[in-house]
Amino acid sequence: MPDNQTIIDAVQAEIETDRDWLIGLTRDMVRIPSVNPKFEPNPAINREADVQALLEPILKQDGFRTEQWDALPGRPNLVGEWAGDESRSLILCGHIDVVPVGAMKDWSVDPFGGEITNGRLYGRGAVDMKGGVAACIAAARAIRKAGITLQGRLAIHSVVDEEAGGFGAMDAVKKGKLAKAVLVAEPTWGDVLPVEGGLEWARVTIRGRNAHSALRYNEIYPQRHDKDRLEPGVNAIEIAARFIAAVRQYELDRTRAKSHPLLPLGMNTINIGVMHGGTGLGEHGLPTVMTNPAIIPDVAVLDLDMKFLPDENSADYRRDFEAFVHHFAQTDAWLRDNPPAIQWELGGLHFPPMNTPVDHPLVRSLMKRKAMVGKAPQARGFVAVCDAAHYAGAGVDGVIFGPSGDGFHGSDEYVEVESVVETAKVIAASVIDWCGIR
Amino acid sequence: MPDNQTIIDAVQAEIETDRDWLIGLTRDMVRIPSVNPKFEPNPAINREADVQALLEPILKQDGFRTEQWDALPGRPNLVGEWAGDESRSLILCGHIDVVPVGAMKDWSVDPFGGEITNGRLYGRGAVDMKGGVAACIAAARAIRKAGITLQGRLAIHSVVDEEAGGFGAMDAVKKGKLAKAVLVAEPTWGDVLPVEGGLEWARVTIRGRNAHSALRYNEIYPQRHDKDRLEPGVNAIEIAARFIAAVRQYELDRTRAKSHPLLPLGMNTINIGVMHGGTGLGEHGLPTVMTNPAIIPDVAVLDLDMKFLPDENSADYRRDFEAFVHHFAQTDAWLRDNPPAIQWELGGLHFPPMNTPVDHPLVRSLMKRKAMVGKAPQARGFVAVCDAAHYAGAGVDGVIFGPSGDGFHGSDEYVEVESVVETAKVIAASVIDWCGIR
Repeated sequence: MPDNQTIIDAVQAEIETDRDWLIGLTRDMVRIPSVNPKFEPNPAINREADVQALLEPILKQDGFRTEQWDALPGRPNLVGEWAGDESRSLILCGHIDVVPVGAMKDWSVDPFGGEITNGRLYGRGAVDMKGGVAACIAAARAIRKAGITLQGRLAIHSVVDEEAGGFGAMDAVKKGKLAKAVLVAEPTWGDVLPVEGGLEWARVTIRGRNAHSALRYNEIYPQRHDKDRLEPGVNAIEIAARFIAAVRQYELDRTRAKSHPLLPLGMNTINIGVMHGGTGLGEHGLPTVMTNPAIIPDVAVLDLDMKFLPDENSADYRRDFEAFVHHFAQTDAWLRDNPPAIQWELGGLHFPPMNTPVDHPLVRSLMKRKAMVGKAPQARGFVAVCDAAHYAGAGVDGVIFGPSGDGFHGSDEYVEVESVVETAKVIAASVIDWCGIR
Repeated sequence: MPDNQTIIDAVQAEIETDRDWLIGLTRDMVRIPSVNPKFEPNPAINREADVQALLEPILKQDGFRTEQWDALPGRPNLVGEWAGDESRSLILCGHIDVVPVGAMKDWSVDPFGGEITNGRLYGRGAVDMKGGVAACIAAARAIRKAGITLQGRLAIHSVVDEEAGGFGAMDAVKKGKLAKAVLVAEPTWGDVLPVEGGLEWARVTIRGRNAHSALRYNEIYPQRHDKDRLEPGVNAIEIAARFIAAVRQYELDRTRAKSHPLLPLGMNTINIGVMHGGTGLGEHGLPTVMTNPAIIPDVAVLDLDMKFLPDENSADYRRDFEAFVHHFAQTDAWLRDNPPAIQWELGGLHFPPMNTPVDHPLVRSLMKRKAMVGKAPQARGFVAVCDAAHYAGAGVDGVIFGPSGDGFHGSDEYVEVESVVETAKVIAASVIDWCGIR
């Protein structure tokens, strides 16, 4: 990869010249409320499509061939492409949905005002991640303005629904919108994140047998097996409690056995995040009666959020957990005949792991280019998950790199304006490094 | 108590003569669907008031001073009284609400048809407990027809809502509709049940602290306490699992420590019947978010059905459980500062114990009178609870005695017609024994 320093200097100068344009674009995006409708359905604030309508003309103006399609009903993805070689192709990706504002009383600014104070641009989505999307567009625009034609194909993916599973990015992947590498401009405070663990959502359904609570003694203590004995109940909530304890041990064993150098120790955890215990398994997969403790409950439904390491894979992970549940069931007479059921991809959710090497050329470029315009970055892993996973699952080398800020998923969210400008400069430089110049 | 055998013979002969009237009354009651609206709100089948309207003229005709009032909106209790001495006063009590029919496909007869086949009268509520109510009315009617005036005051209580907590009987008690003794004609297959355990419904709310599931490692494994450390989450569902195991031990200790001679060993159990685990405690007392396992859940709500022995009392029982929860909380750093909350009388539900001695005159009379007209009864305890508890809690000596049948709370419910007639005869005899003749 040649050192294109002179060209990069010129491109970064364009970004500096147009910094107000970049900040203005971020602000304009923040001013369009694009709350993910899965969290808060309300057409007045579910304006993802309006954000795409704002961005598409800008991409067109910069010579991108653009395309929009509904990833989910009324929720379009926007893709822009500059033609080029596949061997050096790159996607710059960001999501334009945001999480709900939450309690208005906790905000000291208008969450959709885009107010700029003391170098911070405030608003829901400012740092997560409209600032990052704007930086990607500004990077491409500056390359264009500097009169440069890239050798590799460059695509910009502005996708919906990252905050609720990433069905926007998943749909882009499903449509074959791939490349050799992808950079997702989620906030990283200028660090470079080439790895993230995989994530599974699973539902474990434990069945018992209902009976009147007055006959619990007939369930839990020895009885004569005479002909008048009523069929004993089996309390599914109590089985669930034992299962939760067993999962804790399983989690402990796995987290002690293996770790990843770029991630915190013990991050491959299992969070039991939701539980419904009651009676009568409904067609919706949950108990139909959750108001009457006088029934020995026959259904306990546990929803699990399960993280695995970047160098593990989903098939092995699922197989191991299924074996664990199987063996747990073999320890109990009732469960042997009525084993818990495991439903993978609860809510369609599933994030493959991303495990790009730290010496990958795109990672090395970002490390170098970031250090040249600001504070030297760290290469580290991402403890949560983002859209990068969906591309990584399709064989695209992924990396996460983006601006600084705070208040994401909370109140008074802001992005550091200077970090947006710096992010654009670093991305522009790394695009040139990776894609090359024609 | 004098032996009024000649008089009793005459009264029982009246019942025999009018057996078709008694069976017809039972059938007429079954034909009025009086499903408890708390289970299945539908005016077309929530016709408790129509049952009372059927019964009131009959009571009036038999010389009862009657009164109806709404125990719950649109759901009247009916009380009829013959004046008499308080020292020998007696209530004959039954409920006229029924549980829902359930799946119609499981019924081979019309649930509200009152069909009589092979000595069985079929229909929802036939044995639970319109047959018993009809038997009480027939007993009084025969006493009246035989020209007898009782010495003690006799009341008939036809109450609503037994199937959903007994708020009908509770309201009668609250209005001071009491007596020295009460006979509740729930189905007992001719046995005499002078005791039942107490029952509490309690809600235990366990709080955690929510956080992103990706930071579970920060919750469960040691971390440096540097300034950047995020506040760790606390998984309320996992605490609940430990609490459930502790409750099991508490229950085991109590059931091993003490029993009642008329009840099965180990019947003073705790059934954890409902559990909600999720995030954000709502004003309704339950988690507001139960769809997202990516959050470390901060709320687990357990609904408990807790039985205690007839010779225990509610105040002591509650104090013991509160002490247990307190000490459980002291074993954990988080719970010490955030102890579980206990809400007693969940849904307003609370059943005092009933502990009438087996040598109580009314019990002895029923044992004797039943043996004289049919199979010798057993004196035993009731493992569930019924309206007798509410009177017992107000100091009224209670006993449960009623007909035979099957299918209550299930399908093809029926009452043995012969057992209804026999129940009326036994009740009439014991009313004369207890109240005496003027």
